[in-house]
Amino acid sequence: MSYSDEVKVLLEAAGATEGTTVTLEADGRTYKGKIMPHHEFSAPDIVILKMKSGYNVGIRVDSDSKITVIEQPAPAVKKDAEVEEKKGLPTLVLIGTGGTIASYVDYRTGAVHPALSTSDMINAIPEIRDVANVRAKVLFSIFSENMDVAHWQELADCVAEEINNGADGVIIPHGTDTMGYTAAALSFMLGNVSKPVVLVGAQRSSDRPSSDASTNLMACARFCTQGKRAGVFVIMHDTQGDDSFAVHNGARVRKMHTSRRDAFKSINAEPVAHIDKDGKITFSCDGLPVSKEKVEAKTGMEKDVVLLQYFPGMDASVFESVIMNSKGVVFSGSGLGHVNSSLIPLVKKACDNGTVVVMTSQCLNGRTNMNVYNTGRDLISAGVISVLDMLPETAYVKLKWALANTSSAEEAKQLMQTPLVDEMSDRRLF
Amino acid sequence: MSYSDEVKVLLEAAGATEGTTVTLEADGRTYKGKIMPHHEFSAPDIVILKMKSGYNVGIRVDSDSKITVIEQPAPAVKKDAEVEEKKGLPTLVLIGTGGTIASYVDYRTGAVHPALSTSDMINAIPEIRDVANVRAKVLFSIFSENMDVAHWQELADCVAEEINNGADGVIIPHGTDTMGYTAAALSFMLGNVSKPVVLVGAQRSSDRPSSDASTNLMACARFCTQGKRAGVFVIMHDTQGDDSFAVHNGARVRKMHTSRRDAFKSINAEPVAHIDKDGKITFSCDGLPVSKEKVEAKTGMEKDVVLLQYFPGMDASVFESVIMNSKGVVFSGSGLGHVNSSLIPLVKKACDNGTVVVMTSQCLNGRTNMNVYNTGRDLISAGVISVLDMLPETAYVKLKWALANTSSAEEAKQLMQTPLVDEMSDRRLF
Repeated sequence: MSYSDEVKVLLEAAGATEGTTVTLEADGRTYKGKIMPHHEFSAPDIVILKMKSGYNVGIRVDSDSKITVIEQPAPAVKKDAEVEEKKGLPTLVLIGTGGTIASYVDYRTGAVHPALSTSDMINAIPEIRDVANVRAKVLFSIFSENMDVAHWQELADCVAEEINNGADGVIIPHGTDTMGYTAAALSFMLGNVSKPVVLVGAQRSSDRPSSDASTNLMACARFCTQGKRAGVFVIMHDTQGDDSFAVHNGARVRKMHTSRRDAFKSINAEPVAHIDKDGKITFSCDGLPVSKEKVEAKTGMEKDVVLLQYFPGMDASVFESVIMNSKGVVFSGSGLGHVNSSLIPLVKKACDNGTVVVMTSQCLNGRTNMNVYNTGRDLISAGVISVLDMLPETAYVKLKWALANTSSAEEAKQLMQTPLVDEMSDRRLF
Repeated sequence: MSYSDEVKVLLEAAGATEGTTVTLEADGRTYKGKIMPHHEFSAPDIVILKMKSGYNVGIRVDSDSKITVIEQPAPAVKKDAEVEEKKGLPTLVLIGTGGTIASYVDYRTGAVHPALSTSDMINAIPEIRDVANVRAKVLFSIFSENMDVAHWQELADCVAEEINNGADGVIIPHGTDTMGYTAAALSFMLGNVSKPVVLVGAQRSSDRPSSDASTNLMACARFCTQGKRAGVFVIMHDTQGDDSFAVHNGARVRKMHTSRRDAFKSINAEPVAHIDKDGKITFSCDGLPVSKEKVEAKTGMEKDVVLLQYFPGMDASVFESVIMNSKGVVFSGSGLGHVNSSLIPLVKKACDNGTVVVMTSQCLNGRTNMNVYNTGRDLISAGVISVLDMLPETAYVKLKWALANTSSAEEAKQLMQTPLVDEMSDRRLF
């Protein structure tokens, strides 16, 4: 949807376009900010301004409104300028997917919609050139709530290709909403990947003084060039300050706050490593070293899998079609892994029908144990399997992958109960 | 289901019954423990022993098995013995519902199935008599994963009746699995209740040395008699030690660990108070003082409400019948309160159809804000409402209650966005 004719006339008369800083008088109030791109979802008479606070405000404009230009945007940096390669430095590839973190390159307008080019991205954090030669490509430009299974698959293929073409590490700027799910998906799809693959987000876009975009990216570059650790990771701020970063196992991490910079937490595991402000990396566990192995992406994903949180009042008749039409169901059950007894006959029917039903806990922390109480034992009798301390979200992603990469429900169950990338603790340790 | 004839013969020959400590040789191994009650769900040839570790083990017994009695159970305490009332002390009422905490009275067998009587309960924690006259009643004897909406209603009516009959406080021992949901339900049903109503659980049954049943109950008694604070609360261990208890607002608390004693956490709020090992109560916020007001329980609950966690790959066609057949839907969305754009047309259809759709965040911590990104604004346009920092589980319970206690969807929406019992932060503070 584009602007109404009325708004177009006003903007043109004032000489204001995307990126222009203006004052806008409308409805008796005066706003000051940069004009943001007009999104397809905005009403035609709404102008969105990014305020000094960093927040966007949508303002309804009519013929009585007044727009005055304060400052025009700086000229755009020439895109795709060649960046000189330095000999002897490792090669990192940045694969852009969108999200808040991608906004740091769009410094002309401060907009959140991403439009990255190699030079844009590298210009934004010049210090990255001291540690690596960096190539960048834009795979998607979407908010992560719109990342879907097909995006995971394309991304995994792209990462494998870059590593097989010589990348020493891959950094994936990603929206934070579903970064945990994507990290889990890449963990299983890429298996024992031979190089570091790091997802990174930002909780504040770069046009805000408190942005964590550059610092998070620089931490990724340091980890990829100095860590010598292979695997799929998420790197984000470790605290609310700017002085420490946590490296999370991609299959153990969950977004645990809507807005804090240290929103990402390892659950049922310590972070793999911490990086201090000087770039010093301290590992807290062993792991696979980098190697020269080729990577094969196994991107198969079963479509018909659902994640269901149990809640009191959950009615078997309401969820019957969802459960019976799924090849896989992950429950985030109560406590040690329970649902109301009234649901057990439906669960049994699904299991008997060949559906793989996996139990996790909505407590998130701790492990499921269905052997302690009757309800749990009944669930086991019905055919439900437990995955100990695996996160519900990771179990969901793994089940989609396991069903597509095995030839029977029994094999998929076995795979679900076998730790592949430290996504669950070893049963023998309990 | 009862024991097989084979097992009955073996038990009778040995002189062993429920509560007898035995050694049991079966399948080449020797087990030692107390015989637990034979549950209806256990196979007829399984004998369940409670081991010294406190865990139950099911052992398959056949004619080759050998049972030797080590110790017979202590004679049962006479039930319903009169407990002498002390003048001048406040009156507390314990309303038993079941769960791990209720097992502390069943010391004869160590079983987890609850069968409380007044004297049983009070005998188990004699020090409670120093601070209050205690009456107890058993309302249910169920595990909390089987607590349902009808139980919440019966419980709320019972609490109101006890308070209107003169109780100075009500303590509700409850299974921990769904204690947070029940606490939220009582919070809305009882509104500005004039006395303390405290739910309490145990993560370890009393036959284990590490049991938290008695200490948690005693903390409740202290809070009810000395706190002078009215409302619905959850009291549990504050730390993994035995020396401090947290008092949580019943609508702000969530079970965040499957097994730790400090599993319950206040989310998006500090605990209302802490209680140290000497019973000293330190409040961290203001609240309603106790009063002599009568209590009216508003127990109406709309049946057709669902709680759905958003996940990438969530398919509109799979969830269409669930969403379209509900009068209320609570999403625990990603990040600031998002779902994939592909779901928005379905959400809009439901809203247009009169369904109240409420957005919360699966991050749990922090508040939703659908004004920052396009997806959020589209959800608002579709008719979805945000409830800031309210927990998904609390929003689910409140929506059931709001739909039953208002006469239109619009009124229910308004009620959802109004803090009633500090279940959400005041919009004006943001």
